[in-house]
Amino acid sequence: MTQKYVYLFNEGRADMRALLGGKGANLAEMSNIGLPVPPGMTITTETCIEYYRLNKKFPAGLMDQVYTNLAVVEEKAGKKFGNPVNPLLVSVRSGAMFSMPGMMDTILNLGLNEKTVKGVADNTTNQRFAYDAYRRFIQMFGDVVLEIPKYEFENLLEDLKHKHRVTFDQELSAEALRELIDTYKEFVQRKIWRPFPEDPREQLEMAIEAVFRSWNNNRAITYRNLNKISHDLGTAVNIQSMVFGNMGNDSGTGVAFTRNPSTGEKVLYGEYLTNAQGEDVVAGIRTPQPIAKLQEEMPEIFRQFVNTAQLLERHYKNMQDIEFTIERNKLYLLQTRNGKRTAQAGVKIAYDMVTEGLVDKKDAILMVEPAQLDTLLHRQIDTNAKIEYIARGLPASPGAASGTVVFDADDAERLAKQGKKVLLVRTETTPDDIHGMVAAQGILTSRGGMTSHAAVVARGMGKPCVCGCEAIKVDHAKREFSVKTQIIKEGDLVSIDGSTGNVILGAVPLIDPILSDEFLAFLGWADDLKRLGVRANADTPEDALKAREFGATGIGLCRTEHMFMGQDRLPYVQAMILADNEESRREALKHLLPMQAGDFYGILKAMDGYPVCIRLLDPPLHEFLPNLTDLMVEIAEMRIIDKNQSALAEKEALLKKVKTLHEFNPMLGHRGCRLGITYPEVYEMQITAIFSAVARLTKEGLKVLPEIEIPLTIDINEMHFFKERITNIANEIMESEKVNFHYTVGTMIELPRAALLADELAEEVEFFSFGTNDLTQTTLGFSRDDAEGKFLNDYLAKKILKENPFIVLDRKGVGKLMRMAVEGGRKTHPGLLIGICGEHGGEPSSVEFCHQIGLDFVSCSPYRVPIARLAAAQAAVSSGELLGTK
Amino acid sequence: MTQKYVYLFNEGRADMRALLGGKGANLAEMSNIGLPVPPGMTITTETCIEYYRLNKKFPAGLMDQVYTNLAVVEEKAGKKFGNPVNPLLVSVRSGAMFSMPGMMDTILNLGLNEKTVKGVADNTTNQRFAYDAYRRFIQMFGDVVLEIPKYEFENLLEDLKHKHRVTFDQELSAEALRELIDTYKEFVQRKIWRPFPEDPREQLEMAIEAVFRSWNNNRAITYRNLNKISHDLGTAVNIQSMVFGNMGNDSGTGVAFTRNPSTGEKVLYGEYLTNAQGEDVVAGIRTPQPIAKLQEEMPEIFRQFVNTAQLLERHYKNMQDIEFTIERNKLYLLQTRNGKRTAQAGVKIAYDMVTEGLVDKKDAILMVEPAQLDTLLHRQIDTNAKIEYIARGLPASPGAASGTVVFDADDAERLAKQGKKVLLVRTETTPDDIHGMVAAQGILTSRGGMTSHAAVVARGMGKPCVCGCEAIKVDHAKREFSVKTQIIKEGDLVSIDGSTGNVILGAVPLIDPILSDEFLAFLGWADDLKRLGVRANADTPEDALKAREFGATGIGLCRTEHMFMGQDRLPYVQAMILADNEESRREALKHLLPMQAGDFYGILKAMDGYPVCIRLLDPPLHEFLPNLTDLMVEIAEMRIIDKNQSALAEKEALLKKVKTLHEFNPMLGHRGCRLGITYPEVYEMQITAIFSAVARLTKEGLKVLPEIEIPLTIDINEMHFFKERITNIANEIMESEKVNFHYTVGTMIELPRAALLADELAEEVEFFSFGTNDLTQTTLGFSRDDAEGKFLNDYLAKKILKENPFIVLDRKGVGKLMRMAVEGGRKTHPGLLIGICGEHGGEPSSVEFCHQIGLDFVSCSPYRVPIARLAAAQAAVSSGELLGTK
Repeated sequence: MTQKYVYLFNEGRADMRALLGGKGANLAEMSNIGLPVPPGMTITTETCIEYYRLNKKFPAGLMDQVYTNLAVVEEKAGKKFGNPVNPLLVSVRSGAMFSMPGMMDTILNLGLNEKTVKGVADNTTNQRFAYDAYRRFIQMFGDVVLEIPKYEFENLLEDLKHKHRVTFDQELSAEALRELIDTYKEFVQRKIWRPFPEDPREQLEMAIEAVFRSWNNNRAITYRNLNKISHDLGTAVNIQSMVFGNMGNDSGTGVAFTRNPSTGEKVLYGEYLTNAQGEDVVAGIRTPQPIAKLQEEMPEIFRQFVNTAQLLERHYKNMQDIEFTIERNKLYLLQTRNGKRTAQAGVKIAYDMVTEGLVDKKDAILMVEPAQLDTLLHRQIDTNAKIEYIARGLPASPGAASGTVVFDADDAERLAKQGKKVLLVRTETTPDDIHGMVAAQGILTSRGGMTSHAAVVARGMGKPCVCGCEAIKVDHAKREFSVKTQIIKEGDLVSIDGSTGNVILGAVPLIDPILSDEFLAFLGWADDLKRLGVRANADTPEDALKAREFGATGIGLCRTEHMFMGQDRLPYVQAMILADNEESRREALKHLLPMQAGDFYGILKAMDGYPVCIRLLDPPLHEFLPNLTDLMVEIAEMRIIDKNQSALAEKEALLKKVKTLHEFNPMLGHRGCRLGITYPEVYEMQITAIFSAVARLTKEGLKVLPEIEIPLTIDINEMHFFKERITNIANEIMESEKVNFHYTVGTMIELPRAALLADELAEEVEFFSFGTNDLTQTTLGFSRDDAEGKFLNDYLAKKILKENPFIVLDRKGVGKLMRMAVEGGRKTHPGLLIGICGEHGGEPSSVEFCHQIGLDFVSCSPYRVPIARLAAAQAAVSSGELLGTK
Repeated sequence: MTQKYVYLFNEGRADMRALLGGKGANLAEMSNIGLPVPPGMTITTETCIEYYRLNKKFPAGLMDQVYTNLAVVEEKAGKKFGNPVNPLLVSVRSGAMFSMPGMMDTILNLGLNEKTVKGVADNTTNQRFAYDAYRRFIQMFGDVVLEIPKYEFENLLEDLKHKHRVTFDQELSAEALRELIDTYKEFVQRKIWRPFPEDPREQLEMAIEAVFRSWNNNRAITYRNLNKISHDLGTAVNIQSMVFGNMGNDSGTGVAFTRNPSTGEKVLYGEYLTNAQGEDVVAGIRTPQPIAKLQEEMPEIFRQFVNTAQLLERHYKNMQDIEFTIERNKLYLLQTRNGKRTAQAGVKIAYDMVTEGLVDKKDAILMVEPAQLDTLLHRQIDTNAKIEYIARGLPASPGAASGTVVFDADDAERLAKQGKKVLLVRTETTPDDIHGMVAAQGILTSRGGMTSHAAVVARGMGKPCVCGCEAIKVDHAKREFSVKTQIIKEGDLVSIDGSTGNVILGAVPLIDPILSDEFLAFLGWADDLKRLGVRANADTPEDALKAREFGATGIGLCRTEHMFMGQDRLPYVQAMILADNEESRREALKHLLPMQAGDFYGILKAMDGYPVCIRLLDPPLHEFLPNLTDLMVEIAEMRIIDKNQSALAEKEALLKKVKTLHEFNPMLGHRGCRLGITYPEVYEMQITAIFSAVARLTKEGLKVLPEIEIPLTIDINEMHFFKERITNIANEIMESEKVNFHYTVGTMIELPRAALLADELAEEVEFFSFGTNDLTQTTLGFSRDDAEGKFLNDYLAKKILKENPFIVLDRKGVGKLMRMAVEGGRKTHPGLLIGICGEHGGEPSSVEFCHQIGLDFVSCSPYRVPIARLAAAQAAVSSGELLGTK
């Protein structure tokens, strides 16, 4: 018996992707559930493999099977292939097991020749359409099958347009197109030394072979190499009858969603055009009708379409985006796919479908894209508004804001107190600007990356921020900024979109965040399904309360350096740094101790009942002093101009210290617990402050769960060093305050050596927290501040890396170290608590990975907590750990 | 039967370390080979364990065994324990399996009391000596056994000296010491409520118990924690009879080497004093006699000593450093150990001992400390010269140099041409100074670390260099530098020692390097024994020839950036960097191409027959431009003072580019193959230059083996990107030049991600080369420039890390990644060639590790090649791979 090379669409199934390719299996599935798909067949991938095995020959019997099946298709379509009166036209498309978009070839309108084109013209009563279809067919066939470069056809088309003095293709008349067809045919004959094939069967055979060949074109091979797809799979070939919506007033074409994609409302939503093709809708010459109108114009078709829409939703268990064509009162479905939707609609549809019993909660959880939730938590630009941006920076903190431009933090504060909405614009921000950032609607800077001061602080505040917008030139002195030749002055109205990085002139309509009951219920389901804990990164009581509001069950990272940057602390911090000996350093620390104790008191109180992980001082000390270059320029100027010798001497003394602390690579410098090794008294002050606050709160009856975290560890000896001090201070305070409290000690895992030696480190700690920002920087040797906006763009553009590793966790490299650390840590310390803090903790794909390698919690900025909760639930559902549960 | 708790020295063996401790086993070994060791016994470590198991009680029968053996010791010593006329005194010392220097306790002169002290005084005819021994015994016993703080005895001693108006202990008369003994005893009685023990047996029991207790004192526990020694091993106790060299003219003491430790000559070398103790030699009151004189004074003892020395050499198969005492015409050996020696002596002794048939070549190879060879390859300060240094910097490049100080490279060149020897002193050097460095005897800088420009270039040239000497303040304008209040002016004579970092005022006597025939033969043996290949890092034909001279069999790292820094190239390099588009960049590259081709021609020619691994451009481009801060200061000054607007505009344009290229963490920035990804034309120029040179040399009949190395790789896609370009260029040149040549392509493994994904990378490359400088920086998160001289000192001082990881490879962290990379790489590519370049490649312990993990070669600077050859041989011998071979 001969092998079965060809399957009619209704002979296949969705799970036959390997044999029929993705597209073929999909068309089969749609046909089988009773959808009116234009009839057709699929030549299997095995046939392609056989074709190559036979040294590029069709296996015996292939075309016989094609023609036998074609007869069935003709029967269903009510047309005949090659028939001059009622011709069947087909599309011939490739379709491999794994989607390779744009990599292989497609031919439309196959079956056209001098005779059948007349039949099409008569049937559509549209000669121009018929000739246009024909010349397109010759072009595609010429390019794909006959391998004549596409641009040569384009050149001929351009010549013709020039001759007829028209600019656009659609301005060419039927006659002109007829002329083009003749030109094309003569050209092809010159090229291939024989006439363009008139016989539809010859066209079909040649097209099938061309699709087989396209499996091994350069584009396809490169794509498979890049995406690690086997070269041995082969491609299927789909032959499907063409349908036309422009065959008269009983024909038409349209697009519809099964539910409203903006609001999620359960009502058919879409539009259509009678006697038209898809292209006409796109061209915008005629205005389409709303889908409801179809009920009046073609009630039977409308009924069929409503039923089909319902069937599709039930089958795919998701809102569908459907393309359809009506050819002579017969409905055809060209495509259906899960419909894109707004976040609001996404949540409502998921919630409704559970209520309707269409899907269970697990399915519902998988229906919403976690990253989209961002738009529900921040004020957004109304999607209906047409906006034009004048510049684009980095999308540093999501949400949109409008306000009058100010260039100074004091002005921002003053005007905000007068009730004005302001937008703070600066080259970059410093700790001196915090009060202005609090007062402003949003922040725009011309310099600095995603981890610049402005970006980090704005994200913490949940305030929109666009940073590193290099297209704008800020002139603080003139109180204006320019974009190319345009000048924007103080007081002008400007908007920013921190979700896209866009800067817009004037005000824009904004939509407030919506925390609907459905949304809250939906997140509740996520919490029931997820295994990972979700904590927040928060440095202040306000952030901590915001985090609880968004559902965080603890603080995963409380950074103490931001506390050092407050206006009231900076003088003492600087005094501490400028101290020449331990004694004067301790003197400065004495002033900081009560302030720090107050900080910790506030945040631990706000998190009553939940753990709070406090990281000891991390950044290099020079961050608290003026910038070296600025200072040197200032001194150079003072030396020439200024007569004030004592001021100069003071600056010079400061410069000396700044020079001593200056580092070539601060990322890899004197920071983290290295500060605590060199200046144990600094960490001792912080530890004392923490335990003082803990003692006080414990006596007040609160349940405080402090976790003390040592940053930038590389060796167990560091932990020995700090554990001894922590234990001593805790014991002293418990004794002097006559109170007992519990605490744990842990470490960041943020350098490769810590991950490699995690088994040893685990002996001394109760928890690990992955600092994947630093771990990514060191594992890849990428300084984030230098890579983003510089060579990382080239790496992404040239596909060296698929994703920005600072946004999506690099599973292969960084992830491998994380796995090693989890395994090593749990080996010596089975009950070890392991989490992740930093930006990856709120990124859905990274959250999934954290679930997979068995972390206990993720921690992210408060505004990303809902996203992390949903991503964690999706990871749990997708991993199949919950299979069988409901 | 009772357990055997006590072993006489002659009952033990060297391999009984676990039972007898290191010291006990050693004393046993020495006794057994017939050496006249003062007799004694060892209480086993098991006894100590038993003592703790019995809750700090002696096991039954222990003291019986001690006294039984003590009778034998008395017999041998010809003295009696506690006998007032001829008293035996003993020492009681701890001695664990693993050496724990200074961690546990020792008691000397035990057995002294009011009666026996008289016996000692009579026997030595030295009352002062006897009282001094007694008061020392009370002090030691009081401290160690009775646990009275040592300083309390010291205070009493100070009071006494004050009373007698003397400054030093030795000025106290016998009467004064007698008084001190009484004071001590009264004091002890007040402290412990009973008299100081008079009974020698009681003293002995208490001392043994104190040694057992000392196993668990805080010092010892901390030491074991730090060194990962088990707490369960226990300590042995050694009880040995004391001998005295000051018992008259038939007594004496001395120290001797079995061969001359300076030259290696085979002749007894040492000195002695009659009627003296070791202390007298140290105190320097009397001048010792050369050992040869002993032949005249005590011919029989001398004969015995010569025999003993020969015996020891034969037994330990090494030159010995022997301490001996003669007590009443009887020779005792107190200690023998392998003698310290100069490098010259080391090589000669090893060579001679093979010639004498005393050791085989493998033993000989193990006898020489590889790091010591450095002194044979560089000019050194005469070790006999007494020098005083005025400042100390980093020992950046070994060897010593003297010269008159100059502050400018041009001056250095000019004066050198006049035949003057000059020393170039600068704040730091730049590529502009190279001609001055070539001309100078040595280089001294006040700034910069071990990887600064001065250090790297000087090491490459084999020229002495001290850098980062922050104690000196250089004033280029005044042409002078100062150290504290001392001013050194241009023309003053100064010397530096690049092996120690010392800076010396005036000239010093220098010794030229010695490359003796013995040395060359010795290195030849090393080559026969080693498995690792040894290559050199060299960037010029001169360096390449030097490397061959020192025995390198290839170049492991040819850095191309130094070629970019030449005075003739820098303008084109800067033009290339300042180019705004690819076209003008290519224009500048056109000028560099022939120069680069010339560079490669020269170096490949010099290495005819050997592989040359050429690394494509690695450093960030801003290294070729002026420093940002300097430029900003200059512009600030120009703005105020200068009227030359066009010069200012030019500087400002330059500043713009410098700012664009400025990086926060250049180590992790836009460098390595990232340059080749962003500017493929730069790498294409270098590849073209390499293959042009290869084609030319191949046609000239030379055997060239080029290896093209891609730096800073993190992903296989980078290799795909470059491999394609390299292959194309090679093929083009082979075709156009009509010549065939062979080449390989490989990558540096210098970032954790490369090591983690080595299995993938190995698919595309023929070799790996570990760049352990960068790998250490990223694995530990230590910027070398920032860590050394800053926090790394704290890490070493506080014993967080045992070694500077930039000098000695961090086996635990970095080494783990290297192992993974070797395993991963060889798994997918079994024949993969793997090496290491960078500083660790010439450091003996790191070379050993490279041998252990199966690397194929190490590569280091030419002057370290002999060291690496020896270290590689030692690694092969120590690993036991050669066992049974000769």
